[in-house]
Amino acid sequence: MKEFELIESLFSQQAGQAGLGLQDDAACWQPPPDHDIILSVDMLVAGVHFPVGASPALVAARLVGCALSDLAAKGAKPEGCLLTLAFGGAFGGAFGQWDELFLQDFAAAFHKECTRHNVSLWGGDSVSAPTPSVSLSVYGVVPHGTMIKRSGANVGDDVYVSGVIGGGIVGLQEALKDIKSSTKTYSNPEPRLALGQHLRDLASASIDISDGLLADVGHICKASDVAIDMECNAIPLINNTLNDALTFDDMITGGDDYELAFTANPTHRTAITSLAKTLSLPLTRIGIVKEKGATGESLTLITAEGKPHPLPKKRGFSHI
Amino acid sequence: MKEFELIESLFSQQAGQAGLGLQDDAACWQPPPDHDIILSVDMLVAGVHFPVGASPALVAARLVGCALSDLAAKGAKPEGCLLTLAFGGAFGGAFGQWDELFLQDFAAAFHKECTRHNVSLWGGDSVSAPTPSVSLSVYGVVPHGTMIKRSGANVGDDVYVSGVIGGGIVGLQEALKDIKSSTKTYSNPEPRLALGQHLRDLASASIDISDGLLADVGHICKASDVAIDMECNAIPLINNTLNDALTFDDMITGGDDYELAFTANPTHRTAITSLAKTLSLPLTRIGIVKEKGATGESLTLITAEGKPHPLPKKRGFSHI
Repeated sequence: MKEFELIESLFSQQAGQAGLGLQDDAACWQPPPDHDIILSVDMLVAGVHFPVGASPALVAARLVGCALSDLAAKGAKPEGCLLTLAFGGAFGGAFGQWDELFLQDFAAAFHKECTRHNVSLWGGDSVSAPTPSVSLSVYGVVPHGTMIKRSGANVGDDVYVSGVIGGGIVGLQEALKDIKSSTKTYSNPEPRLALGQHLRDLASASIDISDGLLADVGHICKASDVAIDMECNAIPLINNTLNDALTFDDMITGGDDYELAFTANPTHRTAITSLAKTLSLPLTRIGIVKEKGATGESLTLITAEGKPHPLPKKRGFSHI
Repeated sequence: MKEFELIESLFSQQAGQAGLGLQDDAACWQPPPDHDIILSVDMLVAGVHFPVGASPALVAARLVGCALSDLAAKGAKPEGCLLTLAFGGAFGGAFGQWDELFLQDFAAAFHKECTRHNVSLWGGDSVSAPTPSVSLSVYGVVPHGTMIKRSGANVGDDVYVSGVIGGGIVGLQEALKDIKSSTKTYSNPEPRLALGQHLRDLASASIDISDGLLADVGHICKASDVAIDMECNAIPLINNTLNDALTFDDMITGGDDYELAFTANPTHRTAITSLAKTLSLPLTRIGIVKEKGATGESLTLITAEGKPHPLPKKRGFSHI
């Protein structure tokens, strides 16, 4: 039971009111009236979603950032979370570094990230497992009926993306060479929470870029039953001086960018330009929503010459 | 991506309204007004929480049963869940049996258990991992302010337990010999949901027996800052003809029983006797809540001769 007492001592001070000091079987949350609850869960596995030698701070920051990014895309204000820790314990072995010191540093980094985003820890589970993994269920709220779905894109809408694309895959490549040196996009992804909440009044559909720009915009097409044309030259890419081996196709399929892709009626162009200034975050118009063609292909990439850019075969996220 | 499409095809038909057909980044749930939300999560790891060769039906039934048992203890009516699946995929190896057929059977068994308890699947995550594991976050509701906490036990309250104790450890012993032959308590635990909801009007504190009767009653003592005396002879034990090697101490520390231990004011004795008849479930008075002694020891077991029964050194759950 030693490790469970350690977990309790490390995390119980982080428990919000609903977490009951992590001293009960379950959390008890009184949600605000007239709101819908937005729920999501993400699991990260050592050697799959982060390198085996990753620091506690990287694991914690990626876990919180990835999970909250889903709430951001839906326009939700995050409120709380449940954390599941599975680690070596008695198993030791290749993951012996998940020891008491690792957990202390993880708890501190987790607390820092949650505090930064106003998220309370309400509870969780901790188990022994040969392969370490961490899971986070996150809970946010939106005024009733205002969640931004994937399925709301309308023909004629503009397509936007926030920030720059490619930071995730550049960071992953760097991390695989030297885990201590990686882009912030990879090591400490920033969920676009403020943007998402503003977009409740502006966007018709939204998704976060976790699988890759191409795959995720494809998810909007599928859910909304529409086609989308994107201009290659309009897509804002990370300045990739560090790793010239990565191509345009790698960038738009790499994933882990945690920016938002969204659609909006053209009447909102001025408001979106103004929002970008308010948030100091580029919001770039990269395409347009069209009727789905008879051929069934819903995504088209268009070059500067107005020709179709062949769609990469690999559309989305692949594990380490 | 093949396995993710498989997951989608297997589980999307199980998605309740809040699950949006499992087609969005997150679920969107409109909770009933004037209720508190009760949240809990449980993770089960192959080779730790169930034998490696366990059937898909056993894994699904244990997952749903264990997770809902926490809601039962709090008096909550379950509403929905998020499911996380981590399995071999490309890793194969010792867990190669977690193949397409396994997942099909798991999905069918999971659906059956959720349907039986009126729980909708709202979403989840699926990842590749060398060691298979399953996690379930569960969400229930209680009228505002009526959750039964661990911390509500009062001096003078009676202490009760539902059903019989020891089914979990007997079933685990059987399962380790022959995974196809095990008690229902182990292979398909029954969360005491109806009991828990009735206890909102009767119990002052409640917990489910997952770590072991002794450990879990100890949790009530700690959270309520009280002592509890229990009579050894009063504790209802499973009829253990199958495995005479298990002692009284094994039974009360084995865990995985998923019965409820609760405290109640003696004025409720008649109501509790009546509730046991209504539910056709034994509710046995096994002890009394006392003031915490100066020595700090809060749990006392008393023999038929009125003498103290030495407390087992091992109080609670140990992994396989």
